[in-house]
Amino acid sequence: MTYAATKTVIITEKMILDQVTAIIENSGGHGYTVVAAGGKGSRGVRSTGRAAVVDEFSNVKIEVITLDRETAMRIADTVAERFFKDYSGITYLEPVEILRPHKF
Amino acid sequence: MTYAATKTVIITEKMILDQVTAIIENSGGHGYTVVAAGGKGSRGVRSTGRAAVVDEFSNVKIEVITLDRETAMRIADTVAERFFKDYSGITYLEPVEILRPHKF
Amino acid sequence: MTYAATKTVIITEKMILDQVTAIIENSGGHGYTVVAAGGKGSRGVRSTGRAAVVDEFSNVKIEVITLDRETAMRIADTVAERFFKDYSGITYLEPVEILRPHKF
Repeated sequence: MTYAATKTVIITEKMILDQVTAIIENSGGHGYTVVAAGGKGSRGVRSTGRAAVVDEFSNVKIEVITLDRETAMRIADTVAERFFKDYSGITYLEPVEILRPHKF
Repeated sequence: MTYAATKTVIITEKMILDQVTAIIENSGGHGYTVVAAGGKGSRGVRSTGRAAVVDEFSNVKIEVITLDRETAMRIADTVAERFFKDYSGITYLEPVEILRPHKF
Repeated sequence: MTYAATKTVIITEKMILDQVTAIIENSGGHGYTVVAAGGKGSRGVRSTGRAAVVDEFSNVKIEVITLDRETAMRIADTVAERFFKDYSGITYLEPVEILRPHKF
């Protein structure tokens, strides 16, 4: 048997990692995973004037799994509203199934 | 045309990577992807007494795609039962669509 | 409110990263994320004769989010047809929900 849950994915600049994880914890997320990432954003020019093509380790991909969708939405919305005017980043949700709901 | 499949995701401590991939292969998984990861678990204290906040490269995120859901469940259950009392870790399933079923 | 979108995931050899991202951009993808990856393929022997077990940094996992499914399928099909006879790799699609459709 499995339980439906939601994964919130945030891909943004490494320099704001600590601020993003603070929002996750303040919004009700218990635990997160961080992976170093690179890539190219959909906006040709960044508001901060840095190059649009980022190297392999300047971005982070942060993932949080929450049992309820409202927490997922709150995390994604708060991060986007607080940071994505000044920093490049995207956020999206994915459906997942978990085996042990007490861990989330 | 696409085919429904299941992705099993396992995030755990790097030191047990070889044991986890052995379970994947013994449980019917053909191939897996490994990414270095960091993060913070949902349990405040680890059973092994190490710090709860792990650095960027002490965890791994392992992903396996299987055509049948039973194999996915078996991999996730076996890894969780064997390791997650002694090591921090989570596992969850995601629905995916594949293009070439003979590759999985 | 969220909008349905599709994430295309491509896991392949690092040496063809630039060629794959060129296909993504030519196929209508706006932006992508790249993560260093290792793993083991489902085919025991590679066509190029290299070892089947790859080390931690010889593969890449590339992710693209597109609003329409046709673009996702086109990216996945084009990459698979052009490269997966000569290079190891897999590609699959995942359903995601995005908050801000203008960013994709």
